[in-house]
Amino acid sequence: MFKACDVVFLCLPHGEAVNQIDRWAGLAETVIDLSADFRLKDGASYARWYGAPHPAPAWVDRFVYGLPELTRAQLRGARYASGVGCNATATNRALMPLVRAGLLDPNMPIVSDIKVGSSESGAVASDASHHPERSGAVRPYAPAGHRHTAEVEQMFAALGAAAPSAGIHLTVTSIEMVRGATAAVHVFAKSPLQDKTIWKAFRDCYRGEPFVRIVKAATGIFRLPEPKILAGSNWADVGFALSEGGTKVTLFCAIDNLVKGAAGSAVQCLNVMRGFDERAGLGFIGLHP
Amino acid sequence: MFKACDVVFLCLPHGEAVNQIDRWAGLAETVIDLSADFRLKDGASYARWYGAPHPAPAWVDRFVYGLPELTRAQLRGARYASGVGCNATATNRALMPLVRAGLLDPNMPIVSDIKVGSSESGAVASDASHHPERSGAVRPYAPAGHRHTAEVEQMFAALGAAAPSAGIHLTVTSIEMVRGATAAVHVFAKSPLQDKTIWKAFRDCYRGEPFVRIVKAATGIFRLPEPKILAGSNWADVGFALSEGGTKVTLFCAIDNLVKGAAGSAVQCLNVMRGFDERAGLGFIGLHP
Amino acid sequence: MFKACDVVFLCLPHGEAVNQIDRWAGLAETVIDLSADFRLKDGASYARWYGAPHPAPAWVDRFVYGLPELTRAQLRGARYASGVGCNATATNRALMPLVRAGLLDPNMPIVSDIKVGSSESGAVASDASHHPERSGAVRPYAPAGHRHTAEVEQMFAALGAAAPSAGIHLTVTSIEMVRGATAAVHVFAKSPLQDKTIWKAFRDCYRGEPFVRIVKAATGIFRLPEPKILAGSNWADVGFALSEGGTKVTLFCAIDNLVKGAAGSAVQCLNVMRGFDERAGLGFIGLHP
Amino acid sequence: MFKACDVVFLCLPHGEAVNQIDRWAGLAETVIDLSADFRLKDGASYARWYGAPHPAPAWVDRFVYGLPELTRAQLRGARYASGVGCNATATNRALMPLVRAGLLDPNMPIVSDIKVGSSESGAVASDASHHPERSGAVRPYAPAGHRHTAEVEQMFAALGAAAPSAGIHLTVTSIEMVRGATAAVHVFAKSPLQDKTIWKAFRDCYRGEPFVRIVKAATGIFRLPEPKILAGSNWADVGFALSEGGTKVTLFCAIDNLVKGAAGSAVQCLNVMRGFDERAGLGFIGLHP
Repeated sequence: MFKACDVVFLCLPHGEAVNQIDRWAGLAETVIDLSADFRLKDGASYARWYGAPHPAPAWVDRFVYGLPELTRAQLRGARYASGVGCNATATNRALMPLVRAGLLDPNMPIVSDIKVGSSESGAVASDASHHPERSGAVRPYAPAGHRHTAEVEQMFAALGAAAPSAGIHLTVTSIEMVRGATAAVHVFAKSPLQDKTIWKAFRDCYRGEPFVRIVKAATGIFRLPEPKILAGSNWADVGFALSEGGTKVTLFCAIDNLVKGAAGSAVQCLNVMRGFDERAGLGFIGLHP
Repeated sequence: MFKACDVVFLCLPHGEAVNQIDRWAGLAETVIDLSADFRLKDGASYARWYGAPHPAPAWVDRFVYGLPELTRAQLRGARYASGVGCNATATNRALMPLVRAGLLDPNMPIVSDIKVGSSESGAVASDASHHPERSGAVRPYAPAGHRHTAEVEQMFAALGAAAPSAGIHLTVTSIEMVRGATAAVHVFAKSPLQDKTIWKAFRDCYRGEPFVRIVKAATGIFRLPEPKILAGSNWADVGFALSEGGTKVTLFCAIDNLVKGAAGSAVQCLNVMRGFDERAGLGFIGLHP
Repeated sequence: MFKACDVVFLCLPHGEAVNQIDRWAGLAETVIDLSADFRLKDGASYARWYGAPHPAPAWVDRFVYGLPELTRAQLRGARYASGVGCNATATNRALMPLVRAGLLDPNMPIVSDIKVGSSESGAVASDASHHPERSGAVRPYAPAGHRHTAEVEQMFAALGAAAPSAGIHLTVTSIEMVRGATAAVHVFAKSPLQDKTIWKAFRDCYRGEPFVRIVKAATGIFRLPEPKILAGSNWADVGFALSEGGTKVTLFCAIDNLVKGAAGSAVQCLNVMRGFDERAGLGFIGLHP
Repeated sequence: MFKACDVVFLCLPHGEAVNQIDRWAGLAETVIDLSADFRLKDGASYARWYGAPHPAPAWVDRFVYGLPELTRAQLRGARYASGVGCNATATNRALMPLVRAGLLDPNMPIVSDIKVGSSESGAVASDASHHPERSGAVRPYAPAGHRHTAEVEQMFAALGAAAPSAGIHLTVTSIEMVRGATAAVHVFAKSPLQDKTIWKAFRDCYRGEPFVRIVKAATGIFRLPEPKILAGSNWADVGFALSEGGTKVTLFCAIDNLVKGAAGSAVQCLNVMRGFDERAGLGFIGLHP
């Protein structure tokens, strides 16, 4: 019932895309898969986080990890791209400036404390998503060992940086929200930093990016990134706060997990892959209040 | 596995209590049933709203409708009491003062527009209760023909009053809230009223009631009843607003549907039935903010 | 500091626009005022609801009431248009089909029970809008006598229909929501209706309208209009439910009060006034979930 | 206008209690101050976090820091007690078991990521607390340098432990909630731990405590502490999650900031100070859902 077409977006449960990839690749020149099946380039990492060796490693090599801010060069002209984990991508966009700039202390841990909305848990109702129970929750649903950690480690590798010896630690907490994910990434610099050094790292990293904004204001209500005003938009807002002493930095990234963390990011990848205007189809700027 | 005891509260799905009533009445002297099985005294009304003749009409006669403000005299010493429909009871408590005082125009309709929280739909998850869908809803789930209408009609009969010829109309809308139900009951007086007349009707109706407060203030944030500050408490707050011209009155009643609209009301009934302090076990006064 | 331009939208407090109208009309050919200053055509009605005679009745005559579904013909080519009251417009869009079709009982009242978000109260913080107090509110902030009633009466007059002898009654309740207003308008037909008669009235009234949808489904979660999925969009969703017996009808209209109830409606008026595509600048279709 | 009495609770803005302490201490034998004025025993710490030397250091020495789980022995028979910072106390209750057990790596940082409701910001309305702005916020209002850090450092000192060389870092984020604060405290052990070791540390620390529960379940919805079910109660729920590898531990503590984080804790202190039943006046167990 499906005919050949230009582009296929696969939105299947984990483990399904890899089983069906030959079929869909036969129907469309461009395939973008939003599942986790083709995200991890390292077989050992896949096996560790997903519990078994990858069933089709040759296909993994054909897929580009679909984080345009990291892999835009490889996406250009590519036929296959994977999506990104929403929590990984919030963490990665917060971290990339300091990783690129080589400012982090390799002996200190990285802690990403992520607050997320109920749409992250998918469209299937459960006892935990039942409104009387889920409403008002502040629920640590993945306090340790979240699979998206692997995508953060992969980002380090892609930038030629070593992951910290004390580890990368994601904690995901469900809060009262439908759309939205925001990461507070707690990191430590190898030597005391000044605000202007971090500003420069952020500007260098995100100069020219069509969907990343640096949000850091000294006054007003919105001083740091917040997901509410991003609902429905493809923006990733990033920012940071420097502690007294200069070595502890809290990095922030807020997104709409369903857009920049999933569908919008996939469209942005398509635009890059096919040479379209990278912003095509992604013009909604969000609502306030 | 159940042994004889003093009191049984039945919290079973509609239609189950009536099937099991002999068993439970054999185990306990006092039975309070929170389902709809024994609420309606009139067989025709039951058949109309529940779709079939009542399977055990003799048992219906033994049960007292458990609305202490209406049936306290019958509850004293009774062995069997039914609970009340939460939407019916919010509507009835708003209406009773003017019905008792004979102030309503019998040719004008009564419209009860009820806003309710998600706990009214029970403990079983469904597509409609899935947090991403239910969150932020303003959903007319029972726009017309709600079964609790029968309990409002029965209240009129219990007070020896005729239900209005233009009907009693309940509309129930689910809003963003977990606990709480609030009825705005739109009624019309047979002749223009003054505030003081309505005040008197409310005071006459609820004088000495341990769980009803008249809330009507000219200033401040809480000028009329609101359910938020009643969460967990057995209070029913009632109030009213008179329109220019004096014939249109909006009556309000706010409750916690799980307490004054269900479990708390059942405990209050027990206290009346057995001659305990009517407030025993119901001391929580609510939280603010 | 303001130069001549093509269009001015005035978003001033009530009473300011009328004082400044000569200035702005001198700067722009097209003026659209979102305040209440030029909405009411009838001087007596203005005086009754706003407490004093209108200070510039000649200007009132130049303004077209900016409800495209009602006044599109007059808006075409007009230079001046007023906005609409958000609660009035939700009520009017629910009511217009049955008023146009002449189906309402002129002796029966109309009750519009409107649920609204916090953005209706404007951008200035107050004790009542303080989050700990406003959060979770179900607050009857205008239980009777809301000024927008005048705009509903004016709609009747504009359609050549008599307002009901028992009055039009608006009750506005603030609920947990930021954007959104939804009216449940309780009306009574002069004789028993069938669903298909009402369907026809709605279709006749809104055929070809670019921003009105009839929402009435027998299954699924969204059976009647709801404001959540309209946030940020210019849609007005309308629907109805017929009670057993056929004379009581509950009419629904949901909008985003800041868009279809204010700014979006003003843009739509501009498009009509100047002959643009009526949908220009109003393409956002809303978010789900 | 105030007469001599048994107990005074001072709930004054920061800096006011210290100015008025002679007056109140003259009126009542027991004074419990909920402000920050008498919390910090170390003058240098006070000066650092509050910007000036303490104006009445002799009074500081008379006050016991009012955290019963830490200072019960000193509270017994004491005349003066201070309250606790709500964010400090959530962090401290999460941390104390591992600090007491000497399990933390002194070279690794401690990061407390705290999610809080709007009642933490007090009763005065502001632009930031205006409902349309505050609703749905995920706002890092104190991303670094929160004053309550001093109370966490003081807890280390009180237990004879050294604060970590890499610092104690609090980040406070305002989320959609009215009452409640929950801390996720990210810590690192000096050597790999097992669950049972941490369980023992928690049990040893909180054995016999009347208001602390260890919440750590393998199944169900509530596997770790959550503040919603604690609203209005004096419970502090604590728990933990151990990462693969055994050195990273996430410690949790959830409280109602207005009760266990303020007023309830003060009442508990009073009970200890005067030898009353420690639970007197604090019997409310919370609501669910």
